[in-house]
Amino acid sequence: MTVQEPFHDYTLKVIRLLVADLVQQFNGGHPGGAMGMAAIGVSLWKYVMKYAPSDPNFFNRDRFVLSNGHTCLFQYIFLHLTGYKHMTMSQLKTYHSADLNSYCPGHPENEHPGIELTTGALGQGISNSVGLAIAGKNLQATYNKPEFPVISSQIFCMVGDACLQEGVALESISFAGHLGLGNLTVIYDNNQITCDGSVDLTNTENIKDKFLACNWEVLEISEGDNVNQIVEALEYSKTTEKPTIIIVNTRIGIDTAVEGTAVAHGAAFGQSEVDKLHELYQSPEKFYVPSEVYDFFKVDESFVDDWNKLFADYQKAYPESGEELARRIKGELPDWKHLIPKELPSSATASRKASGLVFNNIAKNVNSFMVGTADLSPSVNMAWADKKDFQNPKIKTQCGINGDYSGRYIHYGIREHAMASISNGIAAYNKGTFIPVTSSFFMFYLYAAPGVRYGALSEFQVIHVATHDSIGIGEDGPTHHPIELAALYRSMPNMLYIRPCDNEEVAGAWEAAIDYPHSTIISLSRHNLKQYPELSKRDKVKLGAYVFSEVEDPALNILVTGSEMQFAMEAQEILAKKGIKANVISFPCQRLFDNQPLEYKRSILKQGKLPSVIIEAYAVNGWEKYATAGINMKTFGKSLPGPKVYEYFGYNSEVIADKIDKYYSNWSKDEDLKYEFQEL
Amino acid sequence: MTVQEPFHDYTLKVIRLLVADLVQQFNGGHPGGAMGMAAIGVSLWKYVMKYAPSDPNFFNRDRFVLSNGHTCLFQYIFLHLTGYKHMTMSQLKTYHSADLNSYCPGHPENEHPGIELTTGALGQGISNSVGLAIAGKNLQATYNKPEFPVISSQIFCMVGDACLQEGVALESISFAGHLGLGNLTVIYDNNQITCDGSVDLTNTENIKDKFLACNWEVLEISEGDNVNQIVEALEYSKTTEKPTIIIVNTRIGIDTAVEGTAVAHGAAFGQSEVDKLHELYQSPEKFYVPSEVYDFFKVDESFVDDWNKLFADYQKAYPESGEELARRIKGELPDWKHLIPKELPSSATASRKASGLVFNNIAKNVNSFMVGTADLSPSVNMAWADKKDFQNPKIKTQCGINGDYSGRYIHYGIREHAMASISNGIAAYNKGTFIPVTSSFFMFYLYAAPGVRYGALSEFQVIHVATHDSIGIGEDGPTHHPIELAALYRSMPNMLYIRPCDNEEVAGAWEAAIDYPHSTIISLSRHNLKQYPELSKRDKVKLGAYVFSEVEDPALNILVTGSEMQFAMEAQEILAKKGIKANVISFPCQRLFDNQPLEYKRSILKQGKLPSVIIEAYAVNGWEKYATAGINMKTFGKSLPGPKVYEYFGYNSEVIADKIDKYYSNWSKDEDLKYEFQEL
Repeated sequence: MTVQEPFHDYTLKVIRLLVADLVQQFNGGHPGGAMGMAAIGVSLWKYVMKYAPSDPNFFNRDRFVLSNGHTCLFQYIFLHLTGYKHMTMSQLKTYHSADLNSYCPGHPENEHPGIELTTGALGQGISNSVGLAIAGKNLQATYNKPEFPVISSQIFCMVGDACLQEGVALESISFAGHLGLGNLTVIYDNNQITCDGSVDLTNTENIKDKFLACNWEVLEISEGDNVNQIVEALEYSKTTEKPTIIIVNTRIGIDTAVEGTAVAHGAAFGQSEVDKLHELYQSPEKFYVPSEVYDFFKVDESFVDDWNKLFADYQKAYPESGEELARRIKGELPDWKHLIPKELPSSATASRKASGLVFNNIAKNVNSFMVGTADLSPSVNMAWADKKDFQNPKIKTQCGINGDYSGRYIHYGIREHAMASISNGIAAYNKGTFIPVTSSFFMFYLYAAPGVRYGALSEFQVIHVATHDSIGIGEDGPTHHPIELAALYRSMPNMLYIRPCDNEEVAGAWEAAIDYPHSTIISLSRHNLKQYPELSKRDKVKLGAYVFSEVEDPALNILVTGSEMQFAMEAQEILAKKGIKANVISFPCQRLFDNQPLEYKRSILKQGKLPSVIIEAYAVNGWEKYATAGINMKTFGKSLPGPKVYEYFGYNSEVIADKIDKYYSNWSKDEDLKYEFQEL
Repeated sequence: MTVQEPFHDYTLKVIRLLVADLVQQFNGGHPGGAMGMAAIGVSLWKYVMKYAPSDPNFFNRDRFVLSNGHTCLFQYIFLHLTGYKHMTMSQLKTYHSADLNSYCPGHPENEHPGIELTTGALGQGISNSVGLAIAGKNLQATYNKPEFPVISSQIFCMVGDACLQEGVALESISFAGHLGLGNLTVIYDNNQITCDGSVDLTNTENIKDKFLACNWEVLEISEGDNVNQIVEALEYSKTTEKPTIIIVNTRIGIDTAVEGTAVAHGAAFGQSEVDKLHELYQSPEKFYVPSEVYDFFKVDESFVDDWNKLFADYQKAYPESGEELARRIKGELPDWKHLIPKELPSSATASRKASGLVFNNIAKNVNSFMVGTADLSPSVNMAWADKKDFQNPKIKTQCGINGDYSGRYIHYGIREHAMASISNGIAAYNKGTFIPVTSSFFMFYLYAAPGVRYGALSEFQVIHVATHDSIGIGEDGPTHHPIELAALYRSMPNMLYIRPCDNEEVAGAWEAAIDYPHSTIISLSRHNLKQYPELSKRDKVKLGAYVFSEVEDPALNILVTGSEMQFAMEAQEILAKKGIKANVISFPCQRLFDNQPLEYKRSILKQGKLPSVIIEAYAVNGWEKYATAGINMKTFGKSLPGPKVYEYFGYNSEVIADKIDKYYSNWSKDEDLKYEFQEL
């Protein structure tokens, strides 16, 4: 397409004025970046990107991600100009308004048409884009055939100065270069301004050399207004075998009094400044978009029909692949439950091992699953026997483990945060086409937490396999003992934190996770756990809690999760000998339990009638809802062998039974105990 | 000092055998890295580092940090060889044992002599080291005088391949290069192996070029056994004006069958392999250290006396600085409480603003405080009027904000995680010499969480100023609304999460934080809060909760924190009109409250006697301990103006009063409500 030079300057002015007007009307928002980036937007939406405003989810569209999400007006305005139906001028005017149904929130949100990913916390969008590029490469390698390039999307990502300082971005950049993701184009809005002042307050590295060292193509555009040059660079980036960064030197708040300063970043300019800009541009009308500008951006969508025809022909030529891809485009899984073994070992098994026994066969047979680990393959048991790596095919590793883009096992390196954020990008490629699975020690899901949160917030289905989940890890010590982390994930909306107690419950946890449309953490032990095949019920995990070992006329409930089950079962027995009858309630997931009918919950908890003691080697916070007392962790852990560290903190069945005995005998005497939670 | 060539080979063998034996005895631990790094240890402890085994906390010592903490035997063995009294051979043998009093946990822990920092989760140690280097530079710039170089420590940090992939490390590396921290030497154990295999599985970047792009000196040692070359590089690194990385090419598990493979990383070799190594080295005895090796490592500690004399002379020559530095070496603060204004505004004030009014004057006058922000200076109000930046003095910024190493305000850039981890290093320089203060939006303390956790675990006093702490932020939307984050920090040991409701409580929060020996998060609003000067009590914040607005014969308690106070107070009034008398309990900190005597707690909560409703715009998890019902967040937030987003989620005094009214009227009728927590 020919770049239409003379019209650009006019168009850029229209866009900048629109930004200034929109931020001014409610006196809030981020104007400067969006104005400085206008020419990049023109280049992308007018000349380079393949997208269909009338069909925002067209499968083979190019994807655009705004990693510097605070400049969201930039994206909203181009959605408007190119004719996305929902993005009317009156919708644009809802930016920073009190309109409950606004499509223009303060940061882009992926539930709205034309928005691939929710961004805002810096560094996420570029990491998500690496995920989109991985997803694209994998689909290409899996489905494209000679003369049938059914997958040909390019991923475009805008970043600002700030994104390039965030650790998660730096992890993702390093990994994208390693993988050789040529389908990824990052455009850097190099305005050299952040909130505190000029970037050189905090960052004076040579960005160009840094990206080159990370195996990227680096291009530089000295004039941020030059659509011609930007288009050329963008087109070139689509042809490379490496990811590309295009450094575009822009001017934040261009043509205003605060141009090139931090003040232009995150506040309205003030009406008089906006008026001056209208004067300067000789365009008095507010919110003005002339019809020539709309005409200029009109999209020819004929490539949608072309692709539909191509895909129809593909389905005829390759019926098996065609059917599979069609199903994945619809976001459906094939039957998978039968792939889980009916029988699991009844001898003591680490739940991380059981997790492999349950899931490896699914991962192998259902290619919607993209499974990865942050350098813990030997520990997390997520690699199936003949797994193929998703890998840069040009790399021949020293250790001899190689792969190509059709592989579905990802060695993320020691990059937990990027793993989670990249996984969100994989999930975002198209709803249900991929279900990403991540894995690491549970403790390191604190590193990954912002990425995990974005997955939950964005309503992506991502499954996180978190092993080594208790003080039972042992010698690795307090740096690896996740005392307080469950409280975070149990509080997080759209998230199941499931902690199964044995092999059957591990199977149930995986079933619940695959059935759940949002995110799940499956929390697993490093050490061997006693099995309770007679008591444990995989089908009941989805209830969140159930009676595990029942007695007649119980005097109290023992609630327990995961690897602490054995203490509960043994304590039950010891208490029975003392004449105290206790039910053991297995409680793998608080949220699943909360979702049950009141009647069921009452049948389990019997609150007010029975005292109940939660046994879990985590901080107690949150269990007070279900229990009247707890045997929990009050400090960080300690470096000792697994059984000894349990012992050290009082997780010993005799000690526990004794504590419960004392507590129970006070219960009937002391009315306060019915209302005051006790830490035993 | 002359490098004693012929003896090294022998010494290296003794050390490697000792590693293999120690890992073998309990069949667990990390042998390969420690063995490969032996020559680096000899270079550091024998030739380069200034330290005093008989006085591990000698103030002007060089600091050593093991960022690849899993190789801890490396450090423990050199502490032993150089004569740290606690680190006897029998102590070394407690590695991976069940000994409760072991000085040899699975990762280094800073409560033990000779260990500067607890490490283990990768990327932390190198970030801490940047903090140590900042602390050192600041002390130098503040106290050193011509002919009185009282501060002259070098910071040495070992990293492995994994540390250099972690985002937090990449943030810190970029920042250290920017700051020009010539007192920092990083030694990279370049063995090209991680758990999953060779590093090229996941990382093929050019590390050398990447560090050069980040303004580091880069040196390379091709033979990891060459003490001579390593010593030369280490000595050179002390003379540069940039931080230095020395890339040492080592062989993991050297001289064993698994040399150079991932298997050498994290498991014992097996007795027969260890026996083979003994044979190869012609040294049959286990745990053998010949007396010549002990002699070789004997430390001349005369520099301690030299320094004591220098410091005594300094105190005479510069009595004021001398007294101040002596006090800071003791870890003491001068009087500070009088620096807090007695009177704070009674007009509506954002608590982030109040925080500045309370603390800026302390920060200005007490130079133990190193205050920083992750690029949110205009938002967090932590910069005092004439603050000087801690900055590379060679940099003249575009925005004109400059500084030097004597400054105490740090622009960390958009690097939240590094900010927290670097702060831990600043705190670690010497107990109490610095109190680091960090600041950002509360939501971004999820990015910083692993660093914040390490500060708490290490029992450092670090104060985190977390602004924009509720849905009241408004338009920034769900990406910035910290729904679930308080649950994490309330569960974290050694941590106060304090959420003050008005200016007086902000003053109380700062007092509590400065008095508390561990970590604190002060959680603050973006928006203006109504003031309650008659009710609010700064002295009572340290009790965690107190009766804020008392009625006679209350029928129920309303518990509330932070910016939701106004809803509670208005609801109290509305309920009073309906004839329901409610106390309002201000509840700024759960942990401080938990620490109060039972009697006090009962006087506040009256559990079993009164129903109580917690009003807080976070996930409820944990409040069930104190309340019987809650008005809390069940989902992520929404992008709307602050007052509107409150309204949207039912935070409206009429709506709240109505909910409480209904709940209260059921309370007396429905016995279950006494025991079952209700989400209203």
